[in-house]
Amino acid sequence: MAETRGFHVAVVGATGAVGQQILKTLEERDFPIEKLSLLSSSRSAGTKVSYKGESYTVCEAKPESFEGVDIALFSAGGGVSKALAPEAVTRGAIVVDNTSAFRMDENTPLVVPEVNEDDLHKHNGIIANPNCSTIQMVVALEPVRKQYGLDKVIVSTYQAVSGSGNAAVEELNEQTKAIINGEAFKPEILPVKGDKKHFQIAFNAVPQIDKFVDNGFTFEEMKMINETKKIMHMPELSVAATCVRLPIATGHSESVYFEVDSEGVSAQEMKELLKDAPGVVLQDDPANQIYPMPADCVGKNDVFVGRIRKDLDEDRGFHMWVVSDNLLKGAAWNSVQIAESLIRLGIVK
Amino acid sequence: MAETRGFHVAVVGATGAVGQQILKTLEERDFPIEKLSLLSSSRSAGTKVSYKGESYTVCEAKPESFEGVDIALFSAGGGVSKALAPEAVTRGAIVVDNTSAFRMDENTPLVVPEVNEDDLHKHNGIIANPNCSTIQMVVALEPVRKQYGLDKVIVSTYQAVSGSGNAAVEELNEQTKAIINGEAFKPEILPVKGDKKHFQIAFNAVPQIDKFVDNGFTFEEMKMINETKKIMHMPELSVAATCVRLPIATGHSESVYFEVDSEGVSAQEMKELLKDAPGVVLQDDPANQIYPMPADCVGKNDVFVGRIRKDLDEDRGFHMWVVSDNLLKGAAWNSVQIAESLIRLGIVK
Repeated sequence: MAETRGFHVAVVGATGAVGQQILKTLEERDFPIEKLSLLSSSRSAGTKVSYKGESYTVCEAKPESFEGVDIALFSAGGGVSKALAPEAVTRGAIVVDNTSAFRMDENTPLVVPEVNEDDLHKHNGIIANPNCSTIQMVVALEPVRKQYGLDKVIVSTYQAVSGSGNAAVEELNEQTKAIINGEAFKPEILPVKGDKKHFQIAFNAVPQIDKFVDNGFTFEEMKMINETKKIMHMPELSVAATCVRLPIATGHSESVYFEVDSEGVSAQEMKELLKDAPGVVLQDDPANQIYPMPADCVGKNDVFVGRIRKDLDEDRGFHMWVVSDNLLKGAAWNSVQIAESLIRLGIVK
Repeated sequence: MAETRGFHVAVVGATGAVGQQILKTLEERDFPIEKLSLLSSSRSAGTKVSYKGESYTVCEAKPESFEGVDIALFSAGGGVSKALAPEAVTRGAIVVDNTSAFRMDENTPLVVPEVNEDDLHKHNGIIANPNCSTIQMVVALEPVRKQYGLDKVIVSTYQAVSGSGNAAVEELNEQTKAIINGEAFKPEILPVKGDKKHFQIAFNAVPQIDKFVDNGFTFEEMKMINETKKIMHMPELSVAATCVRLPIATGHSESVYFEVDSEGVSAQEMKELLKDAPGVVLQDDPANQIYPMPADCVGKNDVFVGRIRKDLDEDRGFHMWVVSDNLLKGAAWNSVQIAESLIRLGIVK
């Protein structure tokens, strides 16, 4: 990446699961940082965090924290983003927001660089980073849409607990230990911290991520449905989702059925297409048992696609299995990637 | 159950994961047994097994073991069934076979009593018990087919390791302990004992159950596709499956999308229908976070259905979440249920 100067970058939610990955990613990418402000809620303020070997003290995020900030990466929950992202924008920052606060706002671009980088030009100060489960799916679907058209998507997800934060990972680990040792345990976080009931996640499958909407879908499912249409600029696309939380620390998987416009496309042609798609790594060789798995994707920025099959009945139907690190492409890496795009496109100067 | 006499019952594979559940189920159902023969491969012969407080020695299954047997319940692998089921039939027994050996044989009925009990009358000595993942799905789909017609089924499974036997459960437990303790481990069984590579199952999702077929689907997926059509007598039904193994000891879950023939059916009507369906327990109250989960289904004979939603785009499309104990309704209970039907219908006298 060619840049002319370093930038003042703020990371809001620097102590959280995603914030930590954002810092790691900025470091790995050698992001052009002149000044780094690490911010958080009052609860985590004072925590020491290291970046490139230097120790930083995390400060409570306040409106005035954003004075002089060029790029602010938010991942401290929807409430913090709603309250402080506009304050950051007023002070001249461009916000990349990893919460759901502004995703469906019609004046806020919702961006996955491989899919709709051009939408960054339409920003009004805030750019929304999509939901983790949406991002990896649209990276795999966009090349299909471009080449063969896209009509219908039905997805069932296999989601890791780190999507619910560090405390959920801790709960999975402690509960697993308790069950193995035959000890009692009390679920307190999953499936949704703020919901009424909590259920066992270790050795279980919980078909609830986020709270329920009146139509029987969960918010997570509605996010996948609505965000996919917005990112792909396809309000007419038929999308349905069933989202399930599993005893996996990190790495979301998705079983995706989709129908294209074109007739007579073969599974081999679909594989060739995805082999060269941006952000995608094809792992699809059943004869040698090569397919993506969450345990293999952790720490990697790519979206891994495999198990591509043509439907046996529907000529325009295909199945695939899509896996990615939900904290990286699903969150931190996509946010940093947006920030890199903003610089490369000259939107942040 | 009214019966006139007790029967000579043989259980083949009495020491395996399913065989043990068959014995437990026969006991719980107070099955009319006059004589019980516990059989196995030579490897497990000599093992002591208790039934109704009495100790039995498991004997090696041989052709002559079936002399005088009325009902033989086989679950010792396809090879044993292929070799010995015809021998049992020759000696006058009716075989209920829990392996895939005869499932797609056109002269062998493939039976789920809630769906196609009448097919038992067409038997030629052997009745096949379907694959675990197929059984729970057709129990939930049959009432839909009857009431509204059925056009299309797309299923993604969340399958427990006990479907691969006791050794796979042991592997999950040992691997989980090793990971938690930071120790090395070597996968040796899952995803498929007889395949070339073995992968981590703890804290992972493995999109392979059984070996691969040339078309890119696995045998497990093809079983779900072909067996569903056979059991429901719908060769024209469009069925697709993606089968995934997860770190869950027992209890298969399925995310099922289906399209009916009728237009204008509501989610509420679908719930009412399934509430009263045979073998089904409806657990569907999102407002109170009530939905089926594998951890809750273990040890129960029912098929649990929840998360019923009408598709947001396709008027004839619905989504549901189906959970059942894969060792019970998926195997042992369905086998014993077939045996009970054989007696009730007077096929075994």
